[in-house]
Order: sequence, then C-alpha cells, then structure tokens
Amino acid sequence: MRGDVRRLTRTVAGAQVVAVTDVDLDRARSVAEGVPGARALPTGQALIRADDVDGVVVASWGPTHEEYVLAAIEARKPVFCEKPLAPEVDACLRILDAEMASSRHLVQVGFNRRYDSAYRAMKRTLDGGSLGPPLMAHCAHRNPSVPPHYVGGMPITDTAIHEIDIVRWLFDQEITGAQVLKPRKTSRAKADLQDPLIVLMEIADGALVDVEVFVNLPYGYDIRCEVVCELGTVALGDGSLVVLRKDGFRSDHVPDNFQERFERAYDTEFQEWVDSVVAGQATGPSSWDGYAATAVADACLAALDSGARVPVQMRQRPAFYAPAGLRTPVGAGR
Amino acid sequence: MRGDVRRLTRTVAGAQVVAVTDVDLDRARSVAEGVPGARALPTGQALIRADDVDGVVVASWGPTHEEYVLAAIEARKPVFCEKPLAPEVDACLRILDAEMASSRHLVQVGFNRRYDSAYRAMKRTLDGGSLGPPLMAHCAHRNPSVPPHYVGGMPITDTAIHEIDIVRWLFDQEITGAQVLKPRKTSRAKADLQDPLIVLMEIADGALVDVEVFVNLPYGYDIRCEVVCELGTVALGDGSLVVLRKDGFRSDHVPDNFQERFERAYDTEFQEWVDSVVAGQATGPSSWDGYAATAVADACLAALDSGARVPVQMRQRPAFYAPAGLRTPVGAGR
Amino acid sequence: MRGDVRRLTRTVAGAQVVAVTDVDLDRARSVAEGVPGARALPTGQALIRADDVDGVVVASWGPTHEEYVLAAIEARKPVFCEKPLAPEVDACLRILDAEMASSRHLVQVGFNRRYDSAYRAMKRTLDGGSLGPPLMAHCAHRNPSVPPHYVGGMPITDTAIHEIDIVRWLFDQEITGAQVLKPRKTSRAKADLQDPLIVLMEIADGALVDVEVFVNLPYGYDIRCEVVCELGTVALGDGSLVVLRKDGFRSDHVPDNFQERFERAYDTEFQEWVDSVVAGQATGPSSWDGYAATAVADACLAALDSGARVPVQMRQRPAFYAPAGLRTPVGAGR
Amino acid sequence: MRGDVRRLTRTVAGAQVVAVTDVDLDRARSVAEGVPGARALPTGQALIRADDVDGVVVASWGPTHEEYVLAAIEARKPVFCEKPLAPEVDACLRILDAEMASSRHLVQVGFNRRYDSAYRAMKRTLDGGSLGPPLMAHCAHRNPSVPPHYVGGMPITDTAIHEIDIVRWLFDQEITGAQVLKPRKTSRAKADLQDPLIVLMEIADGALVDVEVFVNLPYGYDIRCEVVCELGTVALGDGSLVVLRKDGFRSDHVPDNFQERFERAYDTEFQEWVDSVVAGQATGPSSWDGYAATAVADACLAALDSGARVPVQMRQRPAFYAPAGLRTPVGAGR
Repeated sequence: MRGDVRRLTRTVAGAQVVAVTDVDLDRARSVAEGVPGARALPTGQALIRADDVDGVVVASWGPTHEEYVLAAIEARKPVFCEKPLAPEVDACLRILDAEMASSRHLVQVGFNRRYDSAYRAMKRTLDGGSLGPPLMAHCAHRNPSVPPHYVGGMPITDTAIHEIDIVRWLFDQEITGAQVLKPRKTSRAKADLQDPLIVLMEIADGALVDVEVFVNLPYGYDIRCEVVCELGTVALGDGSLVVLRKDGFRSDHVPDNFQERFERAYDTEFQEWVDSVVAGQATGPSSWDGYAATAVADACLAALDSGARVPVQMRQRPAFYAPAGLRTPVGAGR
Repeated sequence: MRGDVRRLTRTVAGAQVVAVTDVDLDRARSVAEGVPGARALPTGQALIRADDVDGVVVASWGPTHEEYVLAAIEARKPVFCEKPLAPEVDACLRILDAEMASSRHLVQVGFNRRYDSAYRAMKRTLDGGSLGPPLMAHCAHRNPSVPPHYVGGMPITDTAIHEIDIVRWLFDQEITGAQVLKPRKTSRAKADLQDPLIVLMEIADGALVDVEVFVNLPYGYDIRCEVVCELGTVALGDGSLVVLRKDGFRSDHVPDNFQERFERAYDTEFQEWVDSVVAGQATGPSSWDGYAATAVADACLAALDSGARVPVQMRQRPAFYAPAGLRTPVGAGR
Repeated sequence: MRGDVRRLTRTVAGAQVVAVTDVDLDRARSVAEGVPGARALPTGQALIRADDVDGVVVASWGPTHEEYVLAAIEARKPVFCEKPLAPEVDACLRILDAEMASSRHLVQVGFNRRYDSAYRAMKRTLDGGSLGPPLMAHCAHRNPSVPPHYVGGMPITDTAIHEIDIVRWLFDQEITGAQVLKPRKTSRAKADLQDPLIVLMEIADGALVDVEVFVNLPYGYDIRCEVVCELGTVALGDGSLVVLRKDGFRSDHVPDNFQERFERAYDTEFQEWVDSVVAGQATGPSSWDGYAATAVADACLAALDSGARVPVQMRQRPAFYAPAGLRTPVGAGR
Repeated sequence: MRGDVRRLTRTVAGAQVVAVTDVDLDRARSVAEGVPGARALPTGQALIRADDVDGVVVASWGPTHEEYVLAAIEARKPVFCEKPLAPEVDACLRILDAEMASSRHLVQVGFNRRYDSAYRAMKRTLDGGSLGPPLMAHCAHRNPSVPPHYVGGMPITDTAIHEIDIVRWLFDQEITGAQVLKPRKTSRAKADLQDPLIVLMEIADGALVDVEVFVNLPYGYDIRCEVVCELGTVALGDGSLVVLRKDGFRSDHVPDNFQERFERAYDTEFQEWVDSVVAGQATGPSSWDGYAATAVADACLAALDSGARVPVQMRQRPAFYAPAGLRTPVGAGR
C-alpha cells in the first residue's frame, strides 16, 4: 500500500489520497499520517462509500478483490484493481456481470506491462503491419528468486499471468488452449515448486506462444519477448543504461528486480488511470481482461496438473467489452 | 513555456502553477486559461514579486535570464533558470555575487542531463571507483538538423554546452583549456555554419575530452559518451526499446529528437527541484555550474575563432559553492 | 562437389584431390580438369578402391550414402560423409555394424556446426561448469526461402537435423523424445509445407529444447541458440561485422545464407578432418552421431505426423562409440 | 618465424616452405626440421638467391627489412615484408626507387587489417556511397599491456601504425598533417612511456581522424573504429561469439590479444599473397603503402615531441603506384 500511496501523492499529478485502509489498521493509520489530508478508515467498504472518495485502488490480498471491486461498482466509482481481478474465474464473471449491469466501465486491472514503453513500441510495430501477421512468440520471464510462500501454481498465477495478458494484448485475440512442459528441475528450487516451466499457449487464429517461466535463475530479472511474424520479428531490446568494459568483458547490467525494470510503467499506469478518471473515459485493462487472464491461468494450472493440452473455457465476449473505442465511457451514466 | 507549465501541472507532483508571463501577453493569457488557479501577469518582475509565488522558473530568451534571476534572488525565492545561466560570463558573475550575498542557494540551472538515468548510472560507476581514475572521454552530440537561426557559435553555446556541463559533473573537476578542430564540412550545412566540429577540452588533472558536435547528421539524435579510465571504460548504452529483424537487417531505432531521448530526465529534473524547494535544500546544478559552463563555452568560442588552444579563465570557486553536502540550504535564511 | 573440391585444393593444407566422380560423368571430368593431378573415375566404387585414394568424401544424394560409406569401410579408408549419414535408421545401423566390425573409426559425418567458433565458445562455456547444469535450450533456425523441392518432412530432415546434432553435442546426452507443434502457417509457404514448426526435444536427463524452424522468413538466415542453465544462460552472439547508423536506425546485417554464416566452419571442418586422417585419429562427428540424428529425426517426423509426443528409439551405445578420448583411432589397425 | 612457417605450411594452400633462416641459426635449423622439404640457410641473402625460392617472407627486426627487400627486388622475387616496410622514411624511398626501377610490383607490406572481414565490410559500405563522403573517424587501439622494451615512440610506430594504414585505405587518400595529445597518464604505464595518447590526423580533403592509443588498459584487446559520413556512420561491430547472462550481467568477451581478434585476417592475408604470386599480379599493400605509413608515423613522432601540428612530408605518388587495377603486375617482366 505504501508504494501505491507514495506514487499517487508524489509522482502522479491530478490525484489526492483522502482515505486509506488495511487489514492491519495501525498500518493504515501510520500511512495516513504521512499524507496531508488523508485519514484511515476501518474497512474497505467504509472507504468505498465515503463521499469524498472519487476512485478506489484495490491492492489487498487476491481473494478479497471481488468484494471490494463489487462494492466500488455498486457505488458507481472507478476502481483500479491490482492483478488478479480475482483468483477464481467465477468471481471474475460476477464482476463482469455487475459492471455490465452498471452500464459503465468502472474497473481497471493492474496489468502494468501495457504501460511499459518497450512493450508499447512493440505493439505499435505489430499494429503498423510492416511485419505481416504474427505467427509465434517466444517469451521468457526470469526472476533471481522467489519468497518462501511462492509454491504450487504460482509460476502461472503470479508470474506467467503477465505474459498471459500481454500476449492477448499484443495479438489482439483470445488464447484458446494451453499446455505446460516441465524441463529438468533446477536444484535451486524448493521441493514443492516445479521450476522452470515452459507454458505453451495457442492463440485463436493458430499462432503459438512459448513462455519460459524460471523464478530461481539468479543472474537477474529478465523479461524477454520476441514476436515472429511472416516478414520478420520484433523483440524487446536488450538495452541497458550503460555498457562497461572491464576485465576482459564488455557487459551491461540486467535489472535486479521488477521495480528497476518497470518502475516507469507503474508511474504511467497510475497517471493514465487518474487522467481517465478525470476524463470520464476508461482506457486501461478492463474487467474482461482480468477475467480472460484468470480463465487462461486456470487452463494452464489444469495443464500443469494433467500434462496434456487443455482448452481455455471462456464466455462469449459481450459487446460491452468491445475494443476501447466502442465502449461506454466511465462517466456516461452520470 | 507551454511545455514547462504542462510538466509542472500534469507530471510533477507537489507544484502548482499560480502565475505565468511572456513577452507576448496574449500567449501568457492563453496558457493561464488552461490551468485552474493560474493567472497571467504583465511582467517577469511582477510575477517574481507576487506573494503567492514561492518559486520561479525562468525560460525566457537567454539575454533576459540575468534580470529575472537577480530579481528572484532579491525576492529570496528559489529560481529554476533554463541554460544558459546567462550568455555572458560577466552576467554569470553578477548572479554568483548576488546569490552569495543572499547567503542562500536559490538558483538552479537547467542542465537536465544530470537527471538522465543513463548518465546517472555512468556517474555512479565512476564514483564507485572500480574503473580507477578517468583519463579521457569520447563524446558525440548528433542532431539530424537545426533551425535556420542556428549559426556561428551555436554549436558551442547551444549544443556542446551540454557536454561542457556533463563532463564537469562526471569528472568532478573544472575544465582548464579548450581547442576546437574543424573537420571537412558537410555539404548539408549552411554557408554560415562550420559543421561538424571537434571540441577538445582539458580537465584540471590532465584528462582530455573530445566531443564531436555534428548537427546536420540526418540519421537521428544520438548522444554518446564513453569515459576511459585506468582499468576500463564506461559508456552510455546503445539500447533501444525494441529490436527489429527485417529485410536482412537487425535494427533498432535511434531517437528522433531530444524529447524522445531525454523526456524522462526533464520530468525528474522538475520533480527533484520541486522536492528541493519543499525541503528547503538546493540539490541541483547551481549558479556556479551555470557560470562555469559559460566560461568554458567562451574559451571554446575563442578557440573556434583562433584555431589555437585557449585556456579557460575562471574565478576561484567560493566555499559557498562547495559540493552540495556542505552547502548552505535554500531555506537556511528563513 | 565443386565447392568441396575447391575447399580441399585451395583452402585446406595437407590434402590433394586425386580422383572425382559424379552421377553425371561429364561434370566429374570438367571438375577434374581444373585440378592438377586429378582424374575423373566412372563410379564411386572405382574411386574408393583406387590405390592412390587415402580418404573419401561422400557428397552424393542421401539415399546413396550407405553404399559408398560401406565400401570405404570395406576398403579400410577414412570417409567423410555429408549429412545425413543415411536417411533411414536401418541404413545407419548397417554402417555402425560395419564400422565396428572393422575395429577402426573410419567414418565422419558432416555436422559442420561443431566447427563454428561461436558454437565452440558456447560448448566451452557449458563444459567449464560456471553456469551449472543446462535445463533448457531455445533455438531458432530461420531461412529466407527454400527451393521448390523442399516439402513434407524436410524441415526436420534437412533443417532441424542441424539442431538435433548440435543439441546432442552441447548437452552431451541423447535425445529421448520429441513433439512437433504447428503454429499458424505463414502465407508465404507452399501448400505442401507446414511452415513454421516448433520442435520440442527431451534430453535424457529431463532438459527440454524448443526449436523454431521457419524456412520462409524473408529477413535473412538467422541461427539462434540460448542454453539456459541453473545459474545463467549462454547464447550465440548477435554480433555482426559492422554497425550502420543511418536513416533513424542503428542496424547490422543478418547473414543472407548459410555460406556467409558458416563458411569458416566448413573450412575448419575439412582442415581438422585432413589433419585427423594424417594423424590416424578420428576426431569428428562419428557414425554414431549420424545414426542418432537420423533416429531423432525419425521420431520428429512421427511426431509431426501424429501431433503427439514420440519416444526416440535407439540402440544402446556401443563401447566402440565411447567419447573420443577413449576410442580406437582410425589408423590403429594399420 | 615459427608462426609464419606454420601458417604457410598448414593453413595456406598453394605454398611450400623450402628454406628458412634466422639470426639465430640453431633456431632456423630447428624450424626447418619440422617442415618436410625445408632446409635452413646461413643468411637472408643466400635464401633470397636460392633457385628454388620463388617468393620471400621478411619477418626479421625492422631495421634489417631494407636490406632483404632490396635483395628480393634485385633477385626479381615477390617479397612479403612485415610492417614497417622500414623504420626510416629514407629507407622506404630507396625501396620505392628500386621497385620502380625493376618495373614490377614485387613488394607487399604486412598490413593485415585490410584482410579483416569487419574492416572489409566497412570499406565496402564506404565505397558503396550510401553514407555520403566521410568527414571524421573515431578510432581506439587498446592493449591490455605491452612488453618491457615498448617505450618512447612505439605507441606510434608499433601501434598507431595500423590505424595510419587503415585510415589511408578507408579514406583512399593520403594523410597530410598530424598532432598528438597527451591525456593524463595512467599510473599503470612505465616512467618512460606516455600512455594513453590521442593521435589526430588530417586527411587530404580535410577530414579529421582521432585515434586513442592506450596500451596499458587491462580489460582486453579492443580495436574500434567509426567513420562518420555526411548521412550516417559505419563502425566496427561489437559482436562477440557468445553472450553470457550471469550474476546480474549480460556480457560478452573482449578478445585477449591480437591473435584472437585478427587470426583469420592473417590467414587470408597469406592466402591472398600466395594466390597473387601464383597469378603474377600483386594485390596487397604495396611499398608505397609502407612508405606512406612510415612518413605519417614520422610526423606523429615529431608531433609527439613538439606538441604542435606537424605536416606530413611525402613525395608525389608515382604512376607506378597508382591504384591496383592500373598497376604493372608482379610477373609482367617475366
């Protein structure tokens, strides 16, 4: 929470933090004390209902997202929900239904890579059409290490979830099937974690995506993506700030963690959300995007379990969640 | 002006634009209309004296900088002055004298490269000491084109001035001599412009710096810098956002202009200045830095004229302008 | 043939071409005329039996390899056989049996990538152990185009066959299973060719390898390989000879074809084979390597057909084909 | 000598070593013993006069070059002379005169960089004309260390001599002036060596070249060159064989020494010389090139001494030394 509050008060122009809450109320109070004009409130529901709250940021534990997002929709207030929209597909669907019933686009999901300037340049290149249609993508998501509570399906739900969203966004299509391969396990992973994994995803038009997920590769935090099209490819650059020549090597630094790599994207994400709230026009990842990610992650988890290809089960996309240009704006009902 | 105002109101948290002015008052009024709570004032002096103005940004034509900076010092208000501090060394010295007389660090000069994350990483590497002392630097400052009024000494005063400052900052020493070489002239430069140039600068401890200044090189805006130390080198990276593989080439984009390359640095620069105003502790490039840059540029201009080495003439550095940690803070006199 | 003869006479020291043959005898005569001391012979069998022939290079059509290699073994002469050793696994096995019966290592297969300096640097890095055990490899084999007769299973037998061998060599283990995925087909491929493909290969210890095979990607000939180990990765460099900065791009050339990329490797391959013949000690890819490649390709072809994982069927590795250091030299029986 | 003999006998096709000599005759005998058909001769003169010697390689100490090259010219035998052609300009001129008197191009100087594939690609790019005329070049010649006898002017005569030749070749013009700058000296250089240096060279048409010569920079052997033209630049690539990702860095290896960087160029150089001898048509760097390099090095030495710009003094280029296509072939007089 502290990070989000700091970003909203110090980096993002146009926003003011007026209330905070936390399951640990003392923590909420301590944060509120550091922000002029902010107060701590006892519950998320109280915060969402407060008259001077115009928009809500939900950054609590995943299983609690549904409750707060639904409350924000009911209060007809824009809500920024950190990923996942909800851990369960059914919860995502309940949010979709509520948002559609409200007739307004109120929900944005925190898929911050869409705000990264490199991914955006890649998207512009693909949309420009000079490379022809995309046929494959090769991705890698590498972390130097993960905390002790990172187990089981978290390589899918906490890590590959970013690629799930970015691939949907880059290809502008849904994912229709998934398979998960288990390479030789690294000796650095705990007993209850299969690491690395290779996640294979099928795009609706037949394109294939492979994602290496490796969260105990100690050399650094490295996010890579190359989209292979009919006429050429486009990839995230390997560029770093400076290049060192020393001791027989020419080297550049790999980011230590996601903050170093995506800090600016977090800023842009918040700024654009604040702007969209002011403008009354939702522009960011929607509930539909959150739902789709969860649905694909479910298929991946099943594939991880079964070892076989698993089709992705998804509801028909409602017109309400048509591409942004055609959608009902956030403030249309006001 | 419009760019600065937009940045202060939309990007930088903690600042509010309350008044603007311009030699073209209609323009000032039009800008003020776009900013809630802002008004246009008839003169810079009126703006500087206004009670609700806590800090001043001077972005007018270079020759007018002295007047406004002196007025801000007299009003004991922090002032952010775009480079150059003043085009004439004597004017710089008058600003130094006034600021020292005020006993407070009120002036920051707009050398925005010090806020660029790549230069900062380079500076950290050099300060870390693992490369040993720096002996040389090779720089290039390349522009695809320049406007019609760009003539005479402007490759020094408008272009190399950035390298003059960044080299002083990277080496943490003054520049003591300069020489300017004139390579074969490009056919793309106008008759009244020697382009390209090679500017040679001597650092106080004997290190040498060469700067290629080439402002009609149409391939893009390219800023390069490699510092050669006893044990190795560190250089600005060549990294770009994405890498394209197409038509027989693997390529990445060179920035089109300085905005694309340094946009983030401008944001950071303003943000840190706003923060320093709030904190009452000047942290950015000082009057001394502005003076030093003008003094070196003067030597370069003389060298351009004479073809010979020209020593840099500078006043002794007053204790007042000691390194930041030792300086009297902005708000100390309040 | 002409290329091989030129290489043997003009590039490789220590070899002399004394006889050539070809299914088109006129062509053989024309080649022989260009080489002082060389004559054309009517058949491969005649050539192999000729007293002044100390070693044989087989560069004929794949299905004829078996006959000539067996004849060379019978004549107890070293034979360099271009890949594939034989298109059918059974033919490979007959060669293995004959070579073992001869008690001498006489057969080398033309897997020339093992002689490429980049792959060799990669192998040294892996063998050095600083990266820990390899867990995955991501490869891409891209061709700008293929000739009209390139159809059906040739992406496996003519293209991926190189990765099949190099992966066995890099991991120093056999491949135990294969699966072939079919991404969305490029519109540039003919009706009878599934292009691109993704070939998945399982290494004996559980490591996984994915190979993108894309032979109608017009940007250039691009061979890529990254081996992901427990502590880091090693990849073929993207380096090119020169870097161009022009028209907004910084770019380097992708090779046009395999000659440009691997020309030096072909020289080294021949040179080392000539040296090994002189030294009486086989050092290059053996019959076993040729057999293994064909066996894996067979599994890939079956996988391409069935869409499912196919285990690789291989004979136990005989002691005769133990790692090079332990093998019976070519000349041991002489 | 041993390296040259090995290259001629084992790498280069078309040559046979029949005689060797050395100031240390025992050494010559030991080398000769290792080469079938070779014998040691007591003096260079005896070797040059020997009937079965068709071409001569002079790899002795620089001051002895003149004598042997003149003897080879007198014997009308092609001679490959390692750089420098001769340490003194006057000696170079005597060689030029003798060669012209012989009416045949018999002398090739060992400027091996002209055979490096990267420099050749750069030359092709420049000659192609797409970048417009060259205006500047920025070069760096970095060595990790130098032997104890490397003192005084050797940074010019042993190191920058390569850039002197390659710059003449790339620009296809003579060098008309030189200046040498002395940056802060590295603490790693001996007392009697100014290291690093910056050598400035003026091309006949006004283009300028700067060369960093730094022979105690321990990170590796690094040769860099960027030619800046009117429309863009072309530079030696930074490519390496493999790229390592480990311990927070993405790095590639810098060559340890000139052998690693230029080994292939040495092979090509010899091969093309052998071919040119067979063809009776000189194609490589000529006596004129050797003379020009020595003349420029002399100007650099004077500039190093005086600290001022020194014009290069050169004889008019005789028609005999016109560009290769127009020259009298080696064997024309036979």
